[in-house]
Amino acid sequence: MPAAAPPLAHHDGSALYVRPGPPALGERIPVRVRVSKRSPYNGVVLRAMADDELYLDQGRPVAEDDWEIWYEATLSVHNPITRYRFLLLRSDGRAFDWLNAAGLQDFETSDSADFKMTVFGGAPHWSVERPIYQVFPDRFARSASADARPAPAWAVRRPWGQTPIPGGDASTSEFFGGDLFGLAEHLDHIEALGAGAVYLTPFFPAGSVHRYNAVSFDLVDPALGGNEALAALSRAVHARGLRLIGDLTTNHTGSDHEWFQRAVADPDSPEAAFYIWLRHPDDYVGWWDSPTLPKLNWASQELRRRYTTGPDSVVARWLKPPYDLDGWRIDVANMTGRHRGQDLAHSVARDIRATVEAVKPSAALVAEHMHDASRDLQGDGWQAGMNYAGFTRPLWTWLADPANDTNYFGLPLSVPRRGGRPTARAMREYAALLPWRVAAAMWNNLGSHDTIRFLSLVSDRAVMRAGAAFLMTYLGVPMIFAGDEWGATGVNGEHGRVTMPWDEPDRQDGEMFAAYQSLTALRGAHPALVDGGLRWVLAEDDALAYLRESADEILLVLVARTDWPGAVLDPSLLRGRRPTLLHGPADLIRSEAGYAFPSCGPAAFIWQLS
Amino acid sequence: MPAAAPPLAHHDGSALYVRPGPPALGERIPVRVRVSKRSPYNGVVLRAMADDELYLDQGRPVAEDDWEIWYEATLSVHNPITRYRFLLLRSDGRAFDWLNAAGLQDFETSDSADFKMTVFGGAPHWSVERPIYQVFPDRFARSASADARPAPAWAVRRPWGQTPIPGGDASTSEFFGGDLFGLAEHLDHIEALGAGAVYLTPFFPAGSVHRYNAVSFDLVDPALGGNEALAALSRAVHARGLRLIGDLTTNHTGSDHEWFQRAVADPDSPEAAFYIWLRHPDDYVGWWDSPTLPKLNWASQELRRRYTTGPDSVVARWLKPPYDLDGWRIDVANMTGRHRGQDLAHSVARDIRATVEAVKPSAALVAEHMHDASRDLQGDGWQAGMNYAGFTRPLWTWLADPANDTNYFGLPLSVPRRGGRPTARAMREYAALLPWRVAAAMWNNLGSHDTIRFLSLVSDRAVMRAGAAFLMTYLGVPMIFAGDEWGATGVNGEHGRVTMPWDEPDRQDGEMFAAYQSLTALRGAHPALVDGGLRWVLAEDDALAYLRESADEILLVLVARTDWPGAVLDPSLLRGRRPTLLHGPADLIRSEAGYAFPSCGPAAFIWQLS
Repeated sequence: MPAAAPPLAHHDGSALYVRPGPPALGERIPVRVRVSKRSPYNGVVLRAMADDELYLDQGRPVAEDDWEIWYEATLSVHNPITRYRFLLLRSDGRAFDWLNAAGLQDFETSDSADFKMTVFGGAPHWSVERPIYQVFPDRFARSASADARPAPAWAVRRPWGQTPIPGGDASTSEFFGGDLFGLAEHLDHIEALGAGAVYLTPFFPAGSVHRYNAVSFDLVDPALGGNEALAALSRAVHARGLRLIGDLTTNHTGSDHEWFQRAVADPDSPEAAFYIWLRHPDDYVGWWDSPTLPKLNWASQELRRRYTTGPDSVVARWLKPPYDLDGWRIDVANMTGRHRGQDLAHSVARDIRATVEAVKPSAALVAEHMHDASRDLQGDGWQAGMNYAGFTRPLWTWLADPANDTNYFGLPLSVPRRGGRPTARAMREYAALLPWRVAAAMWNNLGSHDTIRFLSLVSDRAVMRAGAAFLMTYLGVPMIFAGDEWGATGVNGEHGRVTMPWDEPDRQDGEMFAAYQSLTALRGAHPALVDGGLRWVLAEDDALAYLRESADEILLVLVARTDWPGAVLDPSLLRGRRPTLLHGPADLIRSEAGYAFPSCGPAAFIWQLS
Repeated sequence: MPAAAPPLAHHDGSALYVRPGPPALGERIPVRVRVSKRSPYNGVVLRAMADDELYLDQGRPVAEDDWEIWYEATLSVHNPITRYRFLLLRSDGRAFDWLNAAGLQDFETSDSADFKMTVFGGAPHWSVERPIYQVFPDRFARSASADARPAPAWAVRRPWGQTPIPGGDASTSEFFGGDLFGLAEHLDHIEALGAGAVYLTPFFPAGSVHRYNAVSFDLVDPALGGNEALAALSRAVHARGLRLIGDLTTNHTGSDHEWFQRAVADPDSPEAAFYIWLRHPDDYVGWWDSPTLPKLNWASQELRRRYTTGPDSVVARWLKPPYDLDGWRIDVANMTGRHRGQDLAHSVARDIRATVEAVKPSAALVAEHMHDASRDLQGDGWQAGMNYAGFTRPLWTWLADPANDTNYFGLPLSVPRRGGRPTARAMREYAALLPWRVAAAMWNNLGSHDTIRFLSLVSDRAVMRAGAAFLMTYLGVPMIFAGDEWGATGVNGEHGRVTMPWDEPDRQDGEMFAAYQSLTALRGAHPALVDGGLRWVLAEDDALAYLRESADEILLVLVARTDWPGAVLDPSLLRGRRPTLLHGPADLIRSEAGYAFPSCGPAAFIWQLS
C-alpha cells in the first residue's frame, strides 16, 4: 500500500514561510524552510539572484520539533522580481539537492521554477476569500421589466428553460432575455451559495448574445436593462457585502463598434489608428482572421487614452459610481497587444493595472488565457489569470469520463484520462512558474461559459462533487459558473449556457447545491484554505492528497476519483496530531500500525489536524 | 544490463527536422518529427502559438522505413519567437503525450521547454565549425620585444614558468609579460591543435593583469604591444584563416577609467551620466559593491553612442581595420544594464548586436553568464553564451574527482558528484530553454580563466580526455582554455592562469595534446558533430551516450567515467547499420544477441554508423 507523506523539505509563499504582502524594492526579508528530520539534509543555504548574479545566505535553524527543523535565511529583494531557491546540503557535506517551487531537484535545474518574490501587490484579499460566481447575463434571470424591452436586432427569442443549441452561428443569437434587474433579484441564491463576487460576462451592447463583439464601451446594453440596471445591480450587490466584476475585450471590438465604424469611414480619423490595417478600409487584422472582430492596435496612444489610461477611459469609468465595479476580467488577454513582430501585451496590462490602482485600489484584475500564461503573470500587470492551464486542464484529464467525447481545448481528440501523478505534476509545475501571490489568486474553475459543463464531462454527480471539493480546497480562487451548483449540463460552451432553473425544481440538484454550500462554508471557516501553504502528500492514479496549512490550522484534503487501494499515512504527516473529519463520507482508518486513508470513491475528504 | 535506445519520438532544430537558417516573419516552413514504430504513437499534430493563441497542423507521414515514420507539418512563423511542440496521439486515439525540446511529456506541461523557432540569425558558421581557443594574453607567449617595454604601474614581474599564486589581491598584479606579438609567434600551435579562433581576454589597459577593470577602451595596453601588436596579430591570424575575438566589459569599468575620472571630477560632464551615483562623487554602485569597479548606467544615451551604437563606438571601432576583430565576448553580460528596478540588459544586447551586424555581419557575439541565461539567450541580442549552466556545471558534477575540494561555482561546498542521469537531464533541460540556433552555438568549456583547471578537478588524465571528447562531440562550440591541451593544472581561476610551457617539455602532456588534436580533427571531418541533431540514447550512472546525426552521417558517442557494466544496444539504435570505431580504446562487443557497449572506462568512444 502506498504511503502519504509530506515532502522532505518545503517552502512556499504563504505566511508560514514568508511575510505576507509585497516587500519594498531593496528590502531584506526573512524566508523560512522546513526540513524533515527523516531527510538526508542537515543544512540549508538560500541562493538568490541580484541583477542576475547569485548571492547566498546561510540558513539558521530557528525552530525544531521531533519531526522537523525550520531554517531561516534573509532574502534581499534586490529586483522587482527576485528569484530564489534553496540549497539543501546532504549530511556528508559533499552533495546537495535544490528546493525550488516545483519541489526537490537532484540535478542542475534551470531558474524557471525558482521561487519568485515580487514587489507587486497581489489581488485584493476579498477576491480570494470567497468563490467568484460567473454569470452569463442573458441566461441568469429575467426580471418582470424584461418583457417590455425590445430585443436587440440580432436576437432570436427563446423561451426560458429551453436548452441552448450546441454551437454554430445561430447559437450566438439565441436570446433568452435575462437582464441585470433579474440578476439583482436573485442575489439571495448567490449569497446562500457562499460566493463573494459576481463576475459578469460582457454587458456592453454587441452583435451577439455573448457580447464579446462590443459595438460600444459607453453604455450597458439596453436589452440587459441599460446603465440604470447596472447601477441598481451594483447597489444591491454591495449592500450585501458582495462584489461585482466586469469583462473587457481588449484584443478586439466588434466590426459594428462605433470606433471601427468611424475608422472605416475615415482613414484620417483618430479611430483609424485603433486597428491594424492591411489595406484600408476592407482588409484588416481580426481575431483569428475574423472580419467581424477587428483587432485593436495598442500602438495608438489615443486608443490607450480612451480605453485604458485616461481618467474617463473605459477601464476607469465603470469602476466609478454609480456603477462601482470591483474589477475587470480581461478577455483574450493572451493575444491583446500581440501581433506578429509587435508585442505590447505587458505594457497594456501595466497600463490597465495602473488605472485600476489609481481609480479603485481595491479592484481585481484577472486575465483570460487558456494556455501557459506564466510569462504574462509575473504580477506587474494582471494580478492573476483564469487557471485553465494549471487547474482545469489537469483536473479534467484526471476526472473526465473515460468515455467522454468532449473536444479537449481545441486539440484533435477528446479529453484524455490520466493518472493522479501527471495531474499533480501539471498543477504543481505550472504553479511553480508564478509568484506565489499570483498563484494563490488564480481563478480555478471546473468549467466556464467557454467549456462543456463539468457534470457533462465527468458524467457522475459524485465525481463532480469530488471535483468541487478540489476546487474549493486547492490553491487559488474557486470560480463557479452559475448553474454548476445545481448540476447544469451542456456538451460545450454554447450548450452549457443554460438558463437558471428558478422555477424548474427538476433541474435543481439539491444535493449538489448542498455540497457546494457546505464546501464554501467550510472554506470560509478555514482560512488555511484561502491563505494557507500547500504541500502535496499523495499522488496515486486514483487519489490525490495535500495539506493546506497556516500558523493556526492544518487541513488534510484527499480526493479519490473512484474506489482505490487506500494508503497509509506516514507518521510525519500527522506528527501526532489528532485528525477530525470535516467533510467526506468516511474517516481515516485507525489500526495499530497507524492511520490509513479510506479507500472509497468517488469522494473528497477533509480533515482538520489538531 | 541496461539498453541504449533512441527516444520513441524526436525533433530538434537541426537540418534533419527544420530548414537551416532563420525564416522570415510570417513564413510557413515544414518541420519534421520522427516516430519509432515501437512507440505507442500513431499520429502527430503540430501545436504552435500565434500571438499566444494556439493553432494546430496535422502531421503528414512523409517517409517510412522498418523502424520509423517521419511526419511533416507546417509551422507558421507568426512571431519573432514562435513556440511549438508536438502532440503524439496514442493508438487508441484517446490519449497523447507531448514532445517538446526536453523530450516526451506525459502531463500538461508548460510552454517553457517548447521548441522555439526564431527569425533571428544565429552565430556565424565559422564560430561553430572549429573550437574557440581562449588566451589570457599575459600568460600565453612573450615576444623578444616584450623585454624592452616597461611594465604597467600595477605589475609585479614574475618569471615565465613560475606558478601563479592561487588568488588574493596579489594575484591580479602578477605580471608574466606575455604580449600579442608573442601570441602571433605561436599560431602554429593553435592551428595544429585545430582551433578556428582565438578568443583574447581583455587587451585594454587596465589596473590588473586580467584587465577586466579597463582604464580606457581606446587603445591596446602598451604592455601587450599596443595597437600595433593587435593589428599585427590580426593580420597573422587572418592569414591562416583563423579568427580573432575580443572581450568587452559592459557591466563596469575600472575606477581609473578615463570616463570615470571625468565623471568624478565633474558632475556635469557627459561621463557623469555613465555611472550610477548614490552621492557624487564618492558613493556609487560598483560590481558587487566594489568601489574599484563602478557600474555603467545604460540609461545614458551618450554612453550608448560612445560604447555600443555609434560608428566609432568601442563595439564598432575594433571590428574595423586594422584590428578587424571577428567578434566580442561580453563580460558579465548577466548583470549588464541590470540594477534594482532598472533592466536594460536586453536593449543593450540588441544595440550591440545591431552594431556588430552593421559593421561586420560575419562577427560573433557571445555573452558571459555563469547561471541560467536562457531569458537572455532567445537570439535577438547575444548570439550565444558561455555554457557554464548547460555544460560545464553538469559535466563537472559527473566527472569531478569524488575527493575534490574545489569550490562549486560559489556555492558553499565542493563540486558534488552526480550520476549520469541528472547530468544528462541538466544538459537537456537547459538546452531546451534555448532556440536550437542558440543552443548549437553555445560556448561549452571544461573550464576557463575563471575556474579550476579541469585536470585538477578530475585528477585523472584519462577522465580529462573523456571530458574533452564530450566537449568535442556535444551540441555547441568547444572552447579550450589555452594550456588544457597540454594538461595544465591549477586549483582555481588565478592559479590556473599558467604560462604556456613552450620551453618546458615536462609541462607538455603530449598524449593530451594528441587526444585534443585527434578530436578536433575528427570534429572537423564529421560535420554532424557541428551541425547535426542530438539524441540521447543512454544515461547511466557511469556512462552517457548520444547520437549526432545529419542527412549524411550518423555518429554514436559513448563516454564512460569509469569501468561500468556496459549496455546492450537496442536494435532501433543501429537500425541495421554497420558501426565503425572512429575513436576510443575498444569497439562494440558483438554477440548473437546483437551489439553491446564496451564496459571499460574512463574513456570516450565514437562510432560512425553506415
